[in-house]
Amino acid sequence: MPARIAEATWEGTLNEGNGSMKVGSGAFDGPFTFKSRFEDAPMTNPEELLGAAHAGCFTMALGARLGRGGFNVKRIHTTAHVHLEKGESGFAISRIDLVTEGEVDGIDAAAFKEHAEATKDGCIVSKALSAVPMTIQATLK
Amino acid sequence: MPARIAEATWEGTLNEGNGSMKVGSGAFDGPFTFKSRFEDAPMTNPEELLGAAHAGCFTMALGARLGRGGFNVKRIHTTAHVHLEKGESGFAISRIDLVTEGEVDGIDAAAFKEHAEATKDGCIVSKALSAVPMTIQATLK
Repeated sequence: MPARIAEATWEGTLNEGNGSMKVGSGAFDGPFTFKSRFEDAPMTNPEELLGAAHAGCFTMALGARLGRGGFNVKRIHTTAHVHLEKGESGFAISRIDLVTEGEVDGIDAAAFKEHAEATKDGCIVSKALSAVPMTIQATLK
Repeated sequence: MPARIAEATWEGTLNEGNGSMKVGSGAFDGPFTFKSRFEDAPMTNPEELLGAAHAGCFTMALGARLGRGGFNVKRIHTTAHVHLEKGESGFAISRIDLVTEGEVDGIDAAAFKEHAEATKDGCIVSKALSAVPMTIQATLK
């Protein structure tokens, strides 16, 4: 499989300069700045794109795992909360909290939670982000 | 700083189902499927969003680092190549290759390369992805 491609640019200084990020498929291309990353300007930032990648991978993987287990997945919805915090050695992604809800036939809440825990530890993007502490909250609807 | 938010959904089976990913700022909201992730369907996938986050963070951080060093950053452009490969324990992000080009006043090619190497190891998203092998190719234009 060919590598997935993404690009970014930065022009100018950290505080006054401008950045952009885009993905190879063309599905996303958008600007970002110091203020949209470290303050509250209404543009994107790397952390929310990372969160989308993580939520997407986790949700697909949980659905796949439940399907292999014989359960009928109607819908799974996951929110990723990516915490960017300043520590002793500068800013870092200090934690990712995943909050997932499933509409799944034939499973009970405890089993759904077990599958969600296993997916948090084992999905492709979770493994790539294994340096970051993660939590999961799983609810069967 | 509040956490950055992103969301994803999955409906249906792995092969026939549909996913979506979106970011809290509203800058991106798009569908994905098994085929857009593991084959060649023309939609997005988690890996290219992860690549955009990584390229964006790296490029901003390299610009900031050069600025602190007294160099005038005109433009830095980075491409991230995110390799998703099937190994013994299933699919994994096996490597990320960063290819960066800089238009920077007052620096030579060797120093630019050194700063790029340090940023590859030290930027926020690189640290979060430290489980993934990375390479950097840096060119001063």
